Amino acid sequence: MPGIAFGSFDDSFSLSSIKSYVAEFISTLLFVFAGVGSAIAFAKLTADADLDPAGLVAIAVCHGLALFVAVSIAANISGGHVNPAVTFGLAVGGQITILTGIFYWIAQCIGSIAACYLLSFVTGGLAVPTHAVAAGVGAIQGVVMEIIITFALVYTVYATAVDPKKGDLGTIAPLAIGLIVGANILAAGPFSGGSMNPARSFGPAVAAGDFSGHWIYWVGPLVGGGLAGAIYSNVFISNEHAPLSSEF
Amino acid sequence: MPGIAFGSFDDSFSLSSIKSYVAEFISTLLFVFAGVGSAIAFAKLTADADLDPAGLVAIAVCHGLALFVAVSIAANISGGHVNPAVTFGLAVGGQITILTGIFYWIAQCIGSIAACYLLSFVTGGLAVPTHAVAAGVGAIQGVVMEIIITFALVYTVYATAVDPKKGDLGTIAPLAIGLIVGANILAAGPFSGGSMNPARSFGPAVAAGDFSGHWIYWVGPLVGGGLAGAIYSNVFISNEHAPLSSEF
Amino acid sequence: MPGIAFGSFDDSFSLSSIKSYVAEFISTLLFVFAGVGSAIAFAKLTADADLDPAGLVAIAVCHGLALFVAVSIAANISGGHVNPAVTFGLAVGGQITILTGIFYWIAQCIGSIAACYLLSFVTGGLAVPTHAVAAGVGAIQGVVMEIIITFALVYTVYATAVDPKKGDLGTIAPLAIGLIVGANILAAGPFSGGSMNPARSFGPAVAAGDFSGHWIYWVGPLVGGGLAGAIYSNVFISNEHAPLSSEF
Amino acid sequence: MPGIAFGSFDDSFSLSSIKSYVAEFISTLLFVFAGVGSAIAFAKLTADADLDPAGLVAIAVCHGLALFVAVSIAANISGGHVNPAVTFGLAVGGQITILTGIFYWIAQCIGSIAACYLLSFVTGGLAVPTHAVAAGVGAIQGVVMEIIITFALVYTVYATAVDPKKGDLGTIAPLAIGLIVGANILAAGPFSGGSMNPARSFGPAVAAGDFSGHWIYWVGPLVGGGLAGAIYSNVFISNEHAPLSSEF
Repeated sequence: MPGIAFGSFDDSFSLSSIKSYVAEFISTLLFVFAGVGSAIAFAKLTADADLDPAGLVAIAVCHGLALFVAVSIAANISGGHVNPAVTFGLAVGGQITILTGIFYWIAQCIGSIAACYLLSFVTGGLAVPTHAVAAGVGAIQGVVMEIIITFALVYTVYATAVDPKKGDLGTIAPLAIGLIVGANILAAGPFSGGSMNPARSFGPAVAAGDFSGHWIYWVGPLVGGGLAGAIYSNVFISNEHAPLSSEF
Repeated sequence: MPGIAFGSFDDSFSLSSIKSYVAEFISTLLFVFAGVGSAIAFAKLTADADLDPAGLVAIAVCHGLALFVAVSIAANISGGHVNPAVTFGLAVGGQITILTGIFYWIAQCIGSIAACYLLSFVTGGLAVPTHAVAAGVGAIQGVVMEIIITFALVYTVYATAVDPKKGDLGTIAPLAIGLIVGANILAAGPFSGGSMNPARSFGPAVAAGDFSGHWIYWVGPLVGGGLAGAIYSNVFISNEHAPLSSEF
Repeated sequence: MPGIAFGSFDDSFSLSSIKSYVAEFISTLLFVFAGVGSAIAFAKLTADADLDPAGLVAIAVCHGLALFVAVSIAANISGGHVNPAVTFGLAVGGQITILTGIFYWIAQCIGSIAACYLLSFVTGGLAVPTHAVAAGVGAIQGVVMEIIITFALVYTVYATAVDPKKGDLGTIAPLAIGLIVGANILAAGPFSGGSMNPARSFGPAVAAGDFSGHWIYWVGPLVGGGLAGAIYSNVFISNEHAPLSSEF
Repeated sequence: MPGIAFGSFDDSFSLSSIKSYVAEFISTLLFVFAGVGSAIAFAKLTADADLDPAGLVAIAVCHGLALFVAVSIAANISGGHVNPAVTFGLAVGGQITILTGIFYWIAQCIGSIAACYLLSFVTGGLAVPTHAVAAGVGAIQGVVMEIIITFALVYTVYATAVDPKKGDLGTIAPLAIGLIVGANILAAGPFSGGSMNPARSFGPAVAAGDFSGHWIYWVGPLVGGGLAGAIYSNVFISNEHAPLSSEF
């Protein structure tokens, strides 16, 4: 397993790195636009009713499909992280330098904010819903939920897209990465909201000006993603493989 | 990036070009038949109730799956555009000549009209629903919504099917192209209808004889598709690649 | 395009042909068990309520996914027809002999009947629902609906699995074949039922002892499948390719 | 077809075998967490209402997608069984030794138990629902239902992932394996619950302390999986292929 690397400014400002940041910005914008849009669509259709099973299916399927595509369209440019927790998990496993990772984070967060302001405009000013734990669920439970489901997501990234022995799995990697998010929202949506992605939570928080409980959606995903990166790298990736690379 | 090319009549009337127009006609007919059919099916099942989340899932999933298949079955013949905005976005990036593109548009629009008249017959004369912005959503908002979601669609076409460095992504390109439409309808359906495709909107407008607000579904998708073609071609495709080709 | 061939008894009783019949029997049994089972599941959950959009999604998704798998698991043995209309469409295009095709039909129909009797047992004797046109839809409309949607299915089989120039599409062919059925049921379900498959309709008719209107589900799918085979073979497959083969 | 093999302790305690057990533990944990989580999510959203079609879609889609991913992420390490019935079916066909299979079972069952206790915590102490046959369905019907649907699952594993002539199907094997479970839950959910997986049923039984009727979810899946292994191996896999291997 390669170690964590800080990286150099030269690398992080190369033309190919800058294209990566643009790709992360665009992919995160399009993912958050569709995902948060589906939550606003539910509110529009039901006049702000409480979430029901049909609405949960709509929102989960939308996130799953949109993330599949967002990962696909950036895969060959930036690696298709679309998520600070994925970038962090890859940094922990030595797949991206910390410095380049910071620029990924910035691109992702700006993309998410842009998506939310666009949504606010195109929906005629409807509220942008933020992530929050449900009634009956404490902050610690929310954090643990986000840890587990983000672990699943980043472990999937490693197994299908990073692992040098992935073979044919690489072809369907973006599908696996998107659809584990769809599946996990079907389970976690009514409890923690099922974020798995600090940028996905950050844009709505900025647009709505509401940061209550927002820390949950950084701590949970980053711990879960970091754990997945550490465990997968150490247990399943051999020493002689897995060179440092910002693409997967 | 290759420039925009007008093309020659000889090319546009070659046997292989004519097969392309037939393929676009058939694919668009089958896509619109299923997609618009799912909207009529909702009206049939609910006696014309307002759209609800379960109906949105049915319509979005139907469009997503049908477009995946419609793109697949034309991919090796015409490139599988099935959409004037895709054809336009590819012309902007120099992937198809303007002249051939015009014949694609005609084939797509005729396919869509045929689908809608067939639907009118097989459903026993039920109304064919047209695209329109929802109450509380203005025309400008509708146009911007269609620009953003069509940008996502055509950007996906470029990244997964056109880009010479697409690699294994090519295998799942039709799936990504279909499913970004499914995801975007889950977000945009209750606001602009989520067309992303002037032909998809044109057939129902002709069959219903209702062109109110119809311009939104040409302006929005063409601007969004053209932007995606210009940006992807200039930022992410190198000069030495991407020869002029009507197939992707 | 190869012509229609009658075939020889020796070929149709070779060990590999008999394995094909077994594979078709098993795949059709498993497909019909899941598909018809999902319709009975709706009746169970709702105490025989009229179909609603959520139920339509459940039934369409089940058919789509089950057919994807049923085609996959037989693809390398029998070609994965799982449907007399597919077999007929392939015979029209010269991809299977008439004699072998007849044995495919028998295997498919027996598989469907077996599935329905098994369903009757495991559901504690609930009624097995048969295909029929909805109120307000005539027999001719039903036939035309089934022609169009089965045309889409068999055209998809040709474009993704038979066409020698299919390339990478072959990898996702079973997915395209299954999911066009899912999409078409979302459109046609509330009108003709969305069969596209005489065997899928035959098993329930036998188990329920109800053959009223049953002819629609043979005439429509066979005409649609035959048309797709004739058109695709003549327009899109070159002479020098497409040898006679029972596998695709 | 290779015969059933007991195996040696040396093989079952090699480093690569131990990694396999870790991979099975993690994959089963993540699959059960999402799957059972989606059932608890329905209870949370509806205040413990009876299952309805929208809820069935949510639960079936969640299981299908989560299993697709769980199989994918373990495929190159343990073969991605995630299910004692799959392990048993593979042992019957000589694809894994009995001794190694027993350790797979243990890893799968511990993963499932861990998932259920985690769910109990993160949901704020909500009940973990166990599998049981529905009112109007007897134990024998439940067993036969589970036999048939698990047969479909393990037959799919053989046809798409084990069979040496699988070819391109191998690329989409995890998708076929996951989605046949999704399809079968849409059919069997309201009758037997649609387990197909003793570990999936065992964890909730332990966490809830309720083993009534639990035997159904061992007997049915093991008989179905064993039948599929015996039939597929003997009918469709030639003698000269299919070496003993714990990976597929």
